[in-house]
Amino acid sequence: MEFETGFTSAPDGSVLTRFGRTMVLCTCRVVPGVPRFRAEGSGWMTAEYCMTPGSTNDRFQRERRGAKGRTMEIERLIGRSLRACVDLAGFGDHTVHVDCEVLQADGGTRTASISGAFVALALAADSMIERGLITRSPFKGTLGAVSCGIIDGVPVLDLPYEEDARAEIDLNLVLLDGSAIVEVQATGEEGVMSRAELDALLELGTAGVRSLAVVQHEALGAGACARLGLQALA
Amino acid sequence: MEFETGFTSAPDGSVLTRFGRTMVLCTCRVVPGVPRFRAEGSGWMTAEYCMTPGSTNDRFQRERRGAKGRTMEIERLIGRSLRACVDLAGFGDHTVHVDCEVLQADGGTRTASISGAFVALALAADSMIERGLITRSPFKGTLGAVSCGIIDGVPVLDLPYEEDARAEIDLNLVLLDGSAIVEVQATGEEGVMSRAELDALLELGTAGVRSLAVVQHEALGAGACARLGLQALA
Amino acid sequence: MEFETGFTSAPDGSVLTRFGRTMVLCTCRVVPGVPRFRAEGSGWMTAEYCMTPGSTNDRFQRERRGAKGRTMEIERLIGRSLRACVDLAGFGDHTVHVDCEVLQADGGTRTASISGAFVALALAADSMIERGLITRSPFKGTLGAVSCGIIDGVPVLDLPYEEDARAEIDLNLVLLDGSAIVEVQATGEEGVMSRAELDALLELGTAGVRSLAVVQHEALGAGACARLGLQALA
Amino acid sequence: MEFETGFTSAPDGSVLTRFGRTMVLCTCRVVPGVPRFRAEGSGWMTAEYCMTPGSTNDRFQRERRGAKGRTMEIERLIGRSLRACVDLAGFGDHTVHVDCEVLQADGGTRTASISGAFVALALAADSMIERGLITRSPFKGTLGAVSCGIIDGVPVLDLPYEEDARAEIDLNLVLLDGSAIVEVQATGEEGVMSRAELDALLELGTAGVRSLAVVQHEALGAGACARLGLQALA
Amino acid sequence: MEFETGFTSAPDGSVLTRFGRTMVLCTCRVVPGVPRFRAEGSGWMTAEYCMTPGSTNDRFQRERRGAKGRTMEIERLIGRSLRACVDLAGFGDHTVHVDCEVLQADGGTRTASISGAFVALALAADSMIERGLITRSPFKGTLGAVSCGIIDGVPVLDLPYEEDARAEIDLNLVLLDGSAIVEVQATGEEGVMSRAELDALLELGTAGVRSLAVVQHEALGAGACARLGLQALA
Amino acid sequence: MEFETGFTSAPDGSVLTRFGRTMVLCTCRVVPGVPRFRAEGSGWMTAEYCMTPGSTNDRFQRERRGAKGRTMEIERLIGRSLRACVDLAGFGDHTVHVDCEVLQADGGTRTASISGAFVALALAADSMIERGLITRSPFKGTLGAVSCGIIDGVPVLDLPYEEDARAEIDLNLVLLDGSAIVEVQATGEEGVMSRAELDALLELGTAGVRSLAVVQHEALGAGACARLGLQALA
Repeated sequence: MEFETGFTSAPDGSVLTRFGRTMVLCTCRVVPGVPRFRAEGSGWMTAEYCMTPGSTNDRFQRERRGAKGRTMEIERLIGRSLRACVDLAGFGDHTVHVDCEVLQADGGTRTASISGAFVALALAADSMIERGLITRSPFKGTLGAVSCGIIDGVPVLDLPYEEDARAEIDLNLVLLDGSAIVEVQATGEEGVMSRAELDALLELGTAGVRSLAVVQHEALGAGACARLGLQALA
Repeated sequence: MEFETGFTSAPDGSVLTRFGRTMVLCTCRVVPGVPRFRAEGSGWMTAEYCMTPGSTNDRFQRERRGAKGRTMEIERLIGRSLRACVDLAGFGDHTVHVDCEVLQADGGTRTASISGAFVALALAADSMIERGLITRSPFKGTLGAVSCGIIDGVPVLDLPYEEDARAEIDLNLVLLDGSAIVEVQATGEEGVMSRAELDALLELGTAGVRSLAVVQHEALGAGACARLGLQALA
Repeated sequence: MEFETGFTSAPDGSVLTRFGRTMVLCTCRVVPGVPRFRAEGSGWMTAEYCMTPGSTNDRFQRERRGAKGRTMEIERLIGRSLRACVDLAGFGDHTVHVDCEVLQADGGTRTASISGAFVALALAADSMIERGLITRSPFKGTLGAVSCGIIDGVPVLDLPYEEDARAEIDLNLVLLDGSAIVEVQATGEEGVMSRAELDALLELGTAGVRSLAVVQHEALGAGACARLGLQALA
Repeated sequence: MEFETGFTSAPDGSVLTRFGRTMVLCTCRVVPGVPRFRAEGSGWMTAEYCMTPGSTNDRFQRERRGAKGRTMEIERLIGRSLRACVDLAGFGDHTVHVDCEVLQADGGTRTASISGAFVALALAADSMIERGLITRSPFKGTLGAVSCGIIDGVPVLDLPYEEDARAEIDLNLVLLDGSAIVEVQATGEEGVMSRAELDALLELGTAGVRSLAVVQHEALGAGACARLGLQALA
Repeated sequence: MEFETGFTSAPDGSVLTRFGRTMVLCTCRVVPGVPRFRAEGSGWMTAEYCMTPGSTNDRFQRERRGAKGRTMEIERLIGRSLRACVDLAGFGDHTVHVDCEVLQADGGTRTASISGAFVALALAADSMIERGLITRSPFKGTLGAVSCGIIDGVPVLDLPYEEDARAEIDLNLVLLDGSAIVEVQATGEEGVMSRAELDALLELGTAGVRSLAVVQHEALGAGACARLGLQALA
Repeated sequence: MEFETGFTSAPDGSVLTRFGRTMVLCTCRVVPGVPRFRAEGSGWMTAEYCMTPGSTNDRFQRERRGAKGRTMEIERLIGRSLRACVDLAGFGDHTVHVDCEVLQADGGTRTASISGAFVALALAADSMIERGLITRSPFKGTLGAVSCGIIDGVPVLDLPYEEDARAEIDLNLVLLDGSAIVEVQATGEEGVMSRAELDALLELGTAGVRSLAVVQHEALGAGACARLGLQALA
C-alpha cells in the first residue's frame, strides 16, 4: 500500500492510492454550507466511488444512467466509515466531498478507497486548519480498512482479483486506531463460514489495518499527524 | 415473529411476515429460463425489496426514479443470503423472483425480509416439487436473520425503530441452520464497538436465529419441511 | 367488497380493501403545508397507485424507471375522483397523500382503489378532526366506484380479470352519494357499444355503487359517518 | 375543423389539423414488422402525442425526462381509439406509428388529434393499398372525436381553452361512423354532473362528430374514401 | 429559404422556416426573470432543438429519455450563435426561450434553425419594444447560417440530405452581418480537407449567408428592421 | 505536453496525458465484435470523455443522470476525430473503446484528450498486431489537436483555464499528419472574429499540432511508429 499525496494539485486533498495493482485516486473538496437536513454549523461529509471504464480487464460500463447497486453499497460504506473517524461538527459550516476514482481494479478497491480517502481527508483537514477555516482537528483517530478471505481453507490478507473471485468467504474490516470496530462485513456467497473462521479473519484483518496505519502516517508526515492529533498505534 | 402463509393466493409462495409491528409481504414467482449470464439449467434467483409509502411515520417517497442506495444495499443482502441457502442448480431452468414489500416498518425490515423470504421460497420450492418442475429439494438448510444492537451498553435483540435509531451499534446476522455464518454486517455509525461487544452481539444474534427457526418450520408444516429436507436445529 | 380498517397502524388511515380476490392496501398520510401551486391554507390531495410484483399471475415488473402509462392514467383518475368528494380547502394547510398498493390483482383494481381510498381518507379526516387539525368535515358526500362490462351481450358488474379480458366493453363509474356522476370512462377496445348498451351499464353500475356505500359506511362506523356528515343514500 | 393533407411530404400520411386556434400536425409512418407481443402478420399501431413548447401561452416544458401523466393518458386514448376503427390484422406484417405534434393549443387537442390522426391513417392505408403492401382496406368505419362541456349550465361543443378551464364538466366522445361509441370520458373535476346532463352532452357530441365526418371525407377525397370503404353517415 | 412569420399565433415570435424541403418551426417565449447564475437584469436566452418523429424518412425516435448527443450539440450551437448577435443585457430582466421544431428534415436543419430562430427572435424583440418591456434593440446585427460541403471535389451550398450524406466534407458557417465569424464548424468524417478547400467553402458560405440576409429582412419588414437597427449588408 | 504510457497496466493501451496542469488518463479496450449497425468485420470505435469530480476547482458534479451537453459534444468530437485517422475496417471484427478520464482540468481538455487518445489507440493497435488480431496498421497518419485563442488581440496557443475564460475567440483544430484538416471548430461566444483572425489562428494551431507530433512519436517509440506506418512530418 502506497499513498502518493498531491498527485493532482487542484483539490483540497489528493492522494493516489496503490494497493498491489489496484490504483484509486482519492480527492477531497471542501465547500461552504451543509445540506438542509443538517443543522447549520454541524458539518457534513459525503463520499462517491466510481470505477473508470479502463480499470478492469473487461471494460466496465460507465454508470451514466444511475449507479449500480454494488457502487451504491460501496459508497455508503465509505461514507459511513469516514463519518465514524471524525466529529462532523468539527468541520463547522462546511461540507466535505470525498471522491474515489478507481483507475485500476485488482481486488480490494473498497478498502483501498477507505484507507486512501482517510489520507485525503486528513490533508484537507490540515489545509482547513492552515487556512483558518477550522481551529482544531475533527479526527477521533486513524481510519484504516483491509479485506481478507479464506482460500482453500487458509485466511489470506488483501486478495488480488483472481484470488478474490476464488475465495469462499470475504471479509471487509474497518477499524479506528487499529482496534475499535467501525464496520465488519463478512459474506460467504460461495459458502458459509464457521465462527472460528470469522475469528481468524478478524485477527488477520486487525493486524493488516495496524501495519497500514504506519504507512498512512508516513504519507501524511509527522507535522500533519501532530496537528491533527493522530497518534501512533499502541 | 409470525409467518402467515397464503396471505395472497396468486404467487408461487406468499407469506405475510410480522415481526413486532414490522410487516413484510414476501412473495415468490417462478418463471421459466435463466438470465443470459447463467448456463442453461443452472437456475437463478433475484430479490427485490420495497418500502411502501405508507409503511413509515413520515411518508416514504416511492422510488420511481431509481432505487436509493439503502434499498439497493438491502436487496443485494437479501439476494446473497437466499442464494447461500440453496443449490441454485437445483432450480433447473427456472428463475425465482422474490419480492419483499414492507407494509409497515418498525425496525428490522431487512432481517424480517430475509426470514420471511426463506419461508416463501420454501413454499415455492415445495410447490415446484409437487408440480414436477424439480425433483428434489434445492435447500442446503434453514435460513434465518436477526438484527441486534447495543443500547446504553446492553446488547438487545430485534430493536424497534425508535430504539434502533438510538443504538450506537447495529448488527445484522444471517445464519444457515442456526450456526454457519452467511452474512455479518456490523456498523457503528454513531460509535464504534470493541471486539468483546461484537462477540456478545454474535452470541445474542445466534440465539435469536435459532429460536426463529422453530417458528419458520411451524409455518411451513412438518410435511413441507420433510419434503425439502429442512431439519430441526441440533 | 370488504374494508378492513386499521390493517397497518402507522399511517393516518389504513384500509385493506378486498374485492373478490383483488386486494388493495389504501393508506393516507397527512403532512403540513401545500404545494407551491396552491394558495396557503387551501389544502391539497394527491394519489399514487402501484401494482406490487407479486400481485399478478405473471410477475409485474416493478416501476423503478418511471411509471407506465396505465399506472399514471389510473393515478390521475383516483386523484381526480377523491378531489371531487371533498372541499380541498377543508384540509386547511395540509396535504393528504393517498397510496394504493395492489397486493393481489384480479380485475377492478382501479375502482377498488377509489372505493378503499375513500374509506382511508374518511378515517384520516376523522382523525384530523379528533386531533383538532381541522374543525369540520371536508366531505361533500360518499365516493364509490365500480367497473362493469358486457360479456356475450350481457352487462355484468365487477368482472374478475379473466372475464374482464374477455369483455368487449368496459365501463368505470365513479359516483358521489350514489347518483351524481364524478367520472365515467367507457371504452370498447375490442368492440364498440351502442347508446343502449351504455345506458344499461350506467344503470347497473349505479346500483353497484349504491350497495357499496352501505359497506363503506359500516366499515367507517356510525360515529365517524356522523362526524363527517356522511349520510345513508336516499 | 380543417384538415390540410400533405402538409409535409416525407411521412406516409401527413395532415395539419386546425380546430379553432388549435393546430396539430398528424403524421404516419409505416414500418415493416410487428412488436414481439403480436403474432407475425397480425399488424400493430401505436400513437404518440406531444405538446411543443411554443404551443401554449406559458411555455410548455419539453418532456425529455419522461412524458407526464396527462401526455401518457392522452396517448393511450388516441391509440385505443385508432385501434378501434381498424382491423389490425389488415395491416399485415406492418406497424403503423402515428405522431401528433400539437403546434398550437387552444382546447380540444386530444380530440383534434384523434380526428386528424384518422385522416392521416386513412392516407397511409390508401398509400399502402396503392403500393401493394396490403390488398384491402383495414377500416371498420370513420373515426371522429369531439369534446364538449357545460358552462353556466349550458352544454357547449368544442370549447376553446379559456372556456374549457371554466367548464364544470368535460366530456370527450369518440365515435365510429357517428354512432357506435368507442370511448366516453366524462369528468367533473370542479363539479359533478347529473345523468340528464350526461345525456345532453352525449347528444351534443354525437351531432358534432357527425358533422365532422363530412369534413374528414372531403379532406380524403371521394376516391380514397371509396378505396377505403368509408361511407357517408346515414 | 422562406420565412413564414406568424405561422402560429400564441408565442412571442413564430416563424415557419422552409429551406428546400426542410421545414423548421421556430418560436420564442419571453418570460420574466433570469436564471440564478445570471445577475438580475442582465438577460438570458436559451435554445432547444427537436426533430419530430415524422420529420425523417425513417421515423425519428422521440427523445423522451434524454436528448441524444447530436441534438445537444446542435442546441448548444444554436444557443451560442443567437447569444452572439445580441447584447443579452438588452433583454433586461427577461429570459428568452427559443424553440426549433424540425417538421421536415432534408439537410441543413441546424443552419435553417439558426437563420429562422434569428427571425423569430427579432419578432419577439420588436414585440418587446412595442409592449415597452425593453426600450432599445438588443441586436448587434443580422445573424445567418448556411451549410455547405464538397461533393466529388466541388464545393456546393445547402446540401439536401441525400447529397449531404455523400459529402466528404461538411462546413457550417454562422456569420454576423454577413462577415464577422460567429461559428465555423468543419468536419470531414469521411475524409479530410486541405486548407485550400476550407478557404473555398468559407467563400461559398459567406456568399450564401449574405444573400440569405436579404430574405430575412424582407420577412421582418422594413419597419421592424429599422426599429431593431438591422441594416442592409454593405 | 507529455505522454506517460503504461500508466495503468490493465487496458490495451493506457496513457497519462499531461498538458500544462491538465491531466487526462486515456485508455483503450479492444473487444470482439462490432455493433449491429456495422457490417461484420468492418470495425468500430467509440469514445467517452469524463470530467472527474476532483478535476476542477469547483467540484464537478458526477454525471450519473445522463451526460451534459458539453460532455456529449466533446465525446462526439473525439470519436469523429479518431475515426478520421484510421481505416475502421482495419480493426476487423473488433470494437475499440477509448476512454478519456480528466483527472485535472486546466484548459484544453478536449484537445489533450484527442492527442492522448491517439497515442493510446496506437499502443492498442500495435498490441493487436503483436497478438495477431490484425495483420497491418489501420492508421492513415498521426492525429493531433490543439486549442488556441485570441487574448487582448493576440493569438495564443494552449490556453490555461483562466486565460481561456478571458479569450474572446476559441479555436480547436484537429489535423492529420500536421496538415490535412480533420476538424475545425471556431467559436466566439464573447465576440466575433474576422477572417484574418481565423487565418492567424489556423497558422498558429497548425504549428502547434506539428510540434506535438514529435512528442507523440517519442512516446510511442520508433519501433511502434514503424510497425504502424506513422512517419515523421515533412
